[in-house]
Amino acid sequence: MLPDKFRSEAEFVRWLRKQVPGKVSGLRLGIGDDAAVVDVGPQRGVVLKSDMCIENVHFNRRLHPPSSVGHRSLARPLSDLAAMGAVPRFALVSLALSKRTPPGWVKEFYAGLLALAMKFGVTLVGGDVAMMRAPIVIDVIVTGEVALDAELRRSGAKPGDSIFVSGELGLAALGLRLLRLQGHVSTRHRRRSERSDPSWVTAVQAQLYPEPRCKLGRLLSVGNVASATIDLSDGLSTDLRHLCEASGVGARVSEELLPLPPRLEYPRRTRLALALHGGEDYQLLFTVPRGKEIPTSLGNVPLHRIGTIHKSKEILLVANDGRRSALAPAGYDHFRHLT
Amino acid sequence: MLPDKFRSEAEFVRWLRKQVPGKVSGLRLGIGDDAAVVDVGPQRGVVLKSDMCIENVHFNRRLHPPSSVGHRSLARPLSDLAAMGAVPRFALVSLALSKRTPPGWVKEFYAGLLALAMKFGVTLVGGDVAMMRAPIVIDVIVTGEVALDAELRRSGAKPGDSIFVSGELGLAALGLRLLRLQGHVSTRHRRRSERSDPSWVTAVQAQLYPEPRCKLGRLLSVGNVASATIDLSDGLSTDLRHLCEASGVGARVSEELLPLPPRLEYPRRTRLALALHGGEDYQLLFTVPRGKEIPTSLGNVPLHRIGTIHKSKEILLVANDGRRSALAPAGYDHFRHLT
Repeated sequence: MLPDKFRSEAEFVRWLRKQVPGKVSGLRLGIGDDAAVVDVGPQRGVVLKSDMCIENVHFNRRLHPPSSVGHRSLARPLSDLAAMGAVPRFALVSLALSKRTPPGWVKEFYAGLLALAMKFGVTLVGGDVAMMRAPIVIDVIVTGEVALDAELRRSGAKPGDSIFVSGELGLAALGLRLLRLQGHVSTRHRRRSERSDPSWVTAVQAQLYPEPRCKLGRLLSVGNVASATIDLSDGLSTDLRHLCEASGVGARVSEELLPLPPRLEYPRRTRLALALHGGEDYQLLFTVPRGKEIPTSLGNVPLHRIGTIHKSKEILLVANDGRRSALAPAGYDHFRHLT
Repeated sequence: MLPDKFRSEAEFVRWLRKQVPGKVSGLRLGIGDDAAVVDVGPQRGVVLKSDMCIENVHFNRRLHPPSSVGHRSLARPLSDLAAMGAVPRFALVSLALSKRTPPGWVKEFYAGLLALAMKFGVTLVGGDVAMMRAPIVIDVIVTGEVALDAELRRSGAKPGDSIFVSGELGLAALGLRLLRLQGHVSTRHRRRSERSDPSWVTAVQAQLYPEPRCKLGRLLSVGNVASATIDLSDGLSTDLRHLCEASGVGARVSEELLPLPPRLEYPRRTRLALALHGGEDYQLLFTVPRGKEIPTSLGNVPLHRIGTIHKSKEILLVANDGRRSALAPAGYDHFRHLT
């Protein structure tokens, strides 16, 4: 049981320890000491990533229930590990709470985070907690393992490679739009008429509880399928640019090949913009050498070929009528958006 | 050179990569991909710790110059690794900046952090950056290595063990008091008369640029000297309680044995309170089995025996006249202080 109020850090740590399994393979020392100690398999590299979730930047307490915030906080770095082809193992959570955060919020936050952790075999081993007079800031660190020299990098794409994405594009951004229209705290309270629309549910689910593509990443790594990989967190137009810049290449994306989000009441133009620039899909974007055969789905996720890598460093969108235009990065960029 | 303003995350990442050495033993993939990949030595455990530094909680921009904030942000988790006896290796930095943070502040912050990193053989391999409308929040994650089963835990103290601290107690808290009296942004601007007082300089230095006791921790681990270890980040009264609770024991601390901070103009009572409850010293507190010989200094840090572990779970302060009183934890506790 959660106390009505945490009276000390020690009490918080004791509560947190009870939420986490103690005996886990590879875990030598978990929550409660100065630091955690874990084992690494032989001939494996350790993959490390930290990702922040900030109130009113990455989530909004009016739209995202606390379990979604916990889920998303862990999903972000898990998605990065998926893009490396790594098997996630351990997590640290640094949590800066506002003094007004109710303990019930903290409990549901951890419930959401730990449910996703359990699903992906990730063990929470430590972190930090603090109180401040400001929005909630969460930093989740995930460690994973990958066979030496088997990690999927952003930098291996070559001219002629095909460009693939997993799942649908712009679904999470559509979900955010739908939630804003509703202004609901919880999906449980939405209107009856909408419960019956599977597209609504799918999009809102993609926003609140996105599923990192760890299995797909592992299959791409083990099968030596992808020449370059990145996760789609900032939007296709931004993340494709990251991959192309790291690889020293350009790309042409065909509008007609893009897996757009469901129609609902939105015009095609809006759905295209969501697919190109909407972030938080946490799907994988990867390139495959010419001539390599790719199944239509892998790890239960559909794969879509959306274009080709080119030597010229331009990144172009080819419209249905054949006209080309520059695909400018218009995904979320912290340095552009708040300054 | 730092641009006048970072125009995008990509520009920030390019700048940051240039600040960090690229070729480092054990580093397979550093800043710039979805995640970092590092190696671990055979038969070594990976030690993991994250620690936050929050503006107006852990630091104050009127008192701490940006290089001090960078130094302290890394010193905090390094101190935890010292308390595990681990050799620090890699760091991630998650940085939530206010949109008003000037680029010059960011540059000096990293200069301070990377100077300490270089001194301790730590390589920055990644992290995250975001902008928000709030105080600056920094989360630094450090990974280290320790020989399997050689880590120093909080939980091994036994009745009869001697309690030791390294260095002086309350020095950083005294330094903070002196800085507040001055209200200076930078130590460079302090008055001439004080520059000549070595105690002033020592205390202010301990506050602005504390030195984590990694070498001492390693020697305690390798020499199998300490039965339990914790770092002094929250203050002796709080951290000794953590160690005793983890070990299931109590303690008696002798007032006359405490290495008090320098006199300056303060009465003994104030200096005693700083030594007992002042945080941020980042010294080590450890216990040593009865009969084991301890040198007066180790790794260039003086060691002071301050008391004894007892079976009874009370934690007592024994005054110079022999009177005993309960040593209540009065160090910083986030759940007590902001609620």
